[in-house]
Amino acid sequence: MHACAPPDAVVWPRAVGQVQELAALCYRCRVPMVPFGTGTGLEGGVNAVQGGVCFDLSRMDAVAELSLEDFSVAVEPGVTRKALNSRLRGTGLWFPVDPGADASLCGMAATGASGTNAVRYGTMRPNVLNLRVVLPDGRLLHTAGAGRQARKRAAGYDLTSLFVGSEGTLGFLTQATLRLHPLPEAVAATVATFPSVRAAVACTVQVLQAAVPVARIEFLDEVMADACGRYSGTGLPVAPTLLLELHGSRQGLAEQQRQAEEMVRLNGGSVPAWSEEPEERGRLWAMRHSAWYAALALRPGCQGYSTDVCVPISRLPDVVVETQRDLRDSGLTGPMVGHVGDGNFHCLLVFDARDPAEAQRVHAFAQRLGRRALAAGGTCTGEHGVGLGKRALLREELGPEGLDTLRRIKAALDPHNLMNPGKVL
Amino acid sequence: MHACAPPDAVVWPRAVGQVQELAALCYRCRVPMVPFGTGTGLEGGVNAVQGGVCFDLSRMDAVAELSLEDFSVAVEPGVTRKALNSRLRGTGLWFPVDPGADASLCGMAATGASGTNAVRYGTMRPNVLNLRVVLPDGRLLHTAGAGRQARKRAAGYDLTSLFVGSEGTLGFLTQATLRLHPLPEAVAATVATFPSVRAAVACTVQVLQAAVPVARIEFLDEVMADACGRYSGTGLPVAPTLLLELHGSRQGLAEQQRQAEEMVRLNGGSVPAWSEEPEERGRLWAMRHSAWYAALALRPGCQGYSTDVCVPISRLPDVVVETQRDLRDSGLTGPMVGHVGDGNFHCLLVFDARDPAEAQRVHAFAQRLGRRALAAGGTCTGEHGVGLGKRALLREELGPEGLDTLRRIKAALDPHNLMNPGKVL
Ligand SMILES: Cc1cc2nc3c(=O)[nH]c(=O)nc-3n(C[C@H](O)[C@H](O)[C@H](O)COP(=O)(O)OP(=O)(O)OC[C@H]3O[C@@H](n4cnc5c(N)ncnc54)[C@H](O)[C@@H]3O)c2cc1C
Ligand SMILES: Cc1cc2nc3c(=O)[nH]c(=O)nc-3n(C[C@H](O)[C@H](O)[C@H](O)COP(=O)(O)OP(=O)(O)OC[C@H]3O[C@@H](n4cnc5c(N)ncnc54)[C@H](O)[C@@H]3O)c2cc1C
Repeated sequence: MHACAPPDAVVWPRAVGQVQELAALCYRCRVPMVPFGTGTGLEGGVNAVQGGVCFDLSRMDAVAELSLEDFSVAVEPGVTRKALNSRLRGTGLWFPVDPGADASLCGMAATGASGTNAVRYGTMRPNVLNLRVVLPDGRLLHTAGAGRQARKRAAGYDLTSLFVGSEGTLGFLTQATLRLHPLPEAVAATVATFPSVRAAVACTVQVLQAAVPVARIEFLDEVMADACGRYSGTGLPVAPTLLLELHGSRQGLAEQQRQAEEMVRLNGGSVPAWSEEPEERGRLWAMRHSAWYAALALRPGCQGYSTDVCVPISRLPDVVVETQRDLRDSGLTGPMVGHVGDGNFHCLLVFDARDPAEAQRVHAFAQRLGRRALAAGGTCTGEHGVGLGKRALLREELGPEGLDTLRRIKAALDPHNLMNPGKVL
Repeated sequence: MHACAPPDAVVWPRAVGQVQELAALCYRCRVPMVPFGTGTGLEGGVNAVQGGVCFDLSRMDAVAELSLEDFSVAVEPGVTRKALNSRLRGTGLWFPVDPGADASLCGMAATGASGTNAVRYGTMRPNVLNLRVVLPDGRLLHTAGAGRQARKRAAGYDLTSLFVGSEGTLGFLTQATLRLHPLPEAVAATVATFPSVRAAVACTVQVLQAAVPVARIEFLDEVMADACGRYSGTGLPVAPTLLLELHGSRQGLAEQQRQAEEMVRLNGGSVPAWSEEPEERGRLWAMRHSAWYAALALRPGCQGYSTDVCVPISRLPDVVVETQRDLRDSGLTGPMVGHVGDGNFHCLLVFDARDPAEAQRVHAFAQRLGRRALAAGGTCTGEHGVGLGKRALLREELGPEGLDTLRRIKAALDPHNLMNPGKVL
C-alpha cells in the first residue's frame, strides 16, 4: 500500500549508549531518524519518507530484570514476544499481548499493539510499566523514573502512556518494563459456527454483556474461514465463525463453557466441542494467525492491505454487515477477521497493485470504512497505528483542537521534527 | 499541611460554553485559573497559591449518554461517584473506582484517583475513555475525538491518559466518558487478623502471586484497626488486619474463598467468617472509609496529613515494617491503611499544627518515607497526586530529563502558565 522509501543509512547499535551518541549526532546534523523493530508494522511506519538514518535496534536483545515476585520484566528492543514467552517457560508467568506476528515488544509498545488476548488482558498500554527512551537529542528519559515499576502512580503526567503508541515520532524505546501475568490453570478453546455474520457478532456482544471473562473471541467471516481452512489444511466449515478461548481455574472454566455455549445456541450457532490439549489449541491459533497469508493466497501475486477500525460494541453488528455489503458492491476481495471482543475488526484486502483502478477502489473503500467507524463513535485505528496511511482520517477523528494538541506535543519533544518525520501527524 | 490560599474570585459556570468564555477571558487577561471539583483532594491542589479565579464546576452535573449496551456513561464535573452509582441502580452496572471520599468523577480523573477496588478494576486511567477538556485559552478538546468511545484506539498520542492525573494544570475536565462494569453475581467480605504486620502483608503478596482475583484487599495496622473499631463502634480486634472482598459467580466465589482462607492460615492469621449480606458488608466498608476520621479522633483538635507511597509488591513487607519503626522512632501518631494489593499504603499522620517541632517531624518523616519508596523502586504518590507537597520528591523520582519532559508538555499546552500554577511542576 505504501511505496517503499529506503533510508540513507542503517545503523545497528548494540547498547543504549550507542543509540544516544548516534541520536545526538543526527540531532546536531539535523538528520531524520527512523526507529526499526522487526518491520511487521502495517502502516508504513518504518518508511524513511524523508531519508535519514534507520536505527535497527534488533541487536539490543537483553532480557533484563526479570522479577517473578513482582510479575515484571524489562526487555530491550531486540526481544520479540515469542522470545520472551520462551524465556518465561517454566516460571508460571507469560506475556499475553499477541498481535500474531512475532513483533518486537518495544515495537509493539511503539504502535500500541494488541491482538487476540486484549479483551481479557488489555492492550500494550496497561501492560507497560516503564520505558527507557532515547530522546531525539540523545538524552535518556525513563518515563516512570529510572528503575521504577510501581503498579500504579499519580506522579505527574503519564509519560509512559504518551510514548506507548507514539510510533517512533517522539524518541527511541530502548527498554520496556512489562507486566507479566500468571498462566491460567486451565484453558479451553473451540470453533463456533453461525448461520450469519450478524448472528456471530450478536453472540459476541451478548458474551461481553453477560461478563463471561473470555480470553479470546475472534471472528472470521465465511470467506476468511474458508481461506484459513484451506491454507492451513484444517478444513474449517465455510461459515461465519467465532474462535473462543477461555482461561480459568478448572472449576471456573466449566462454568464459563456452559455460559458461552448457551449464547452460541441462542444465536443459532453450532454448539462446539472444546479442546483443552495444548497441541490442538496450538493448531487452532496457528490457523488464526495464518489469516494474512491465507488471504494473500486467495490471489497469488497480489498485494495485501489490512484495515483496522474499532467501534463501540453495540454498533459492531451493523458496521460489520454494512462493510460486507460495501465489499461486495466494490467488487473487492477482503476477508474479515476481528478482535470483536474489543469492537475491532480488519478487512484483509487483496488486490492487484498493478491495476490502478483496483488500487483506487481499495483506497476509497478503506476511507469509507474509516468514516463509517467514525460515524459510529469509533476510531480509524484500533491497534495498527496511524503511520503514513491514516493521517487524513486522524484529522477527522480528533478535530482541529485534537490535532493541534498532538502537534504541540510533538513540537515540544522533537522541536526539529527529526524523529520519524511524516508519520502520524 | 498546606496553608490555605483563597482565590480572588470564584465562578460557578453552568454549561461548558460558560467555562470556555470565562477561560478565554482569564487567558486574555493572564489571570490564573484553578479548577475545583469537590475539594476532597489531599495535596492542596485547589489552593490558589498565585490568586486568580477558582472555577467551581459542581453546578454542571448532567449524567449524559448512558449506554447500557456499551457499558459507558459520560458525566459532568458535578457528578460524584456515589451520585453516579445511585443513578445506575437497577441497571446491573456500576462504576468501581472508590477513593472513599464522595469525590467528583472529573476530580478523580484529574488526580488519577484509585482506592479500594483498583486491584481488580484498575485506577481511573483505564476507566476513562474520553475527556471533554476546556483548554486554557477556551478552546474545546475531546481527547479521543468528539462523541467517541471505542474500547481501544491507536490513533495518535494518548491524550486521554495525558489529561488523567494532570491535576488541573493543563485544562478543565468538563465531561468524562467512563467505562462501567457489570455488577458481580455474588460478593463476600471478611476481616482477617494476623499475628504481625509482616504476616498480613506477606499474605497479600501470596494472594496476588496465586492470582486469586480479589476485588479488595485492604490493610490496617493494629493502631488503625483499634481506632476504626472504636470510632465506628464495630469492635474490631486490635491486630494487623486485612479486609478482603471477593467478587464472582456463586460457584467461583466458593473457590476464591477457599484459596484466600488457605493463604490467611498459612500466614498464621485467623480464618475468617465471610459475610455476603449487603448491609453487613456496607458496615464493614463504612468502617474502612471512616479511617481518616477515626485517625483524627485519636487526637482531638489536631490536624491530619496522609502519605501515599506505592512500591513493587515484593518490597512491600520490608517497606511497611521499616516505616512502622520510623513512626515509633519519630514519636509520631500515624496509623496505617493500605490498598496493599497495589503496593500502595498511607500513614494517616495526626499532629498538632501549633507545635512547629512536631510539624517539622511530620514533614521530615513524609520525606523519608517518600525516599524509602523511591529507593525500593516505587513512587512518592500512588493515587493522591503531587499537588503542592510532593514537587521535590517528584524531581527525585523522575530525574532531570523526566522533569524537563513534563515542563515541555506543560509549556506546550499552557504557554502562559495560567492553569493551576504552582502545582505538580
Ligand atoms: C500478519 C500480521 C498480523 C498482525 N496482526 C496484528 C494484530 O492482531 N494486532 C496488532 O496490534 N498488530 C498486528 N500486526 C502489526 C504489527 O505486528 C505491529 O504493528 C507491531 O506492533 C510492530 O512491531 P515491530 O517491532 O515489527 O515494529 P516495526 O514494524 O519495526 O515499526 C513499527 C512502528 O513503530 C516504530 N518503532 C518500532 N520499534 C521502535 C522502538 N524501539 N522505539 C521507537 N519506535 C519504534 C517504527 O518507527 C514504526 O513507526 C500484524 C502484523 C502482521 C504482519
Ligand atoms: C477521607 C478521604 C479519603 C480519601 N481516600 C482516597 C483514596 O483511597 N484514593 C484516592 O485516590 N484518593 C483518596 N482521597 C483523595 C480524593 O478523594 C481525591 O484526590 C479526589 O480524586 C479529588 O476529587 P475532587 O473532586 O474532590 O477534586 P478537588 O479536591 O476539588 O481537586 C483536586 C485536584 O484536581 C483538580 N480538579 C478537580 N476537578 C477538576 C476538573 N473538573 N478539571 C480539571 N481539574 C480538576 C483541582 O484543581 C485539584 O488540583 C481521599 C480523600 C479523603 C478526604
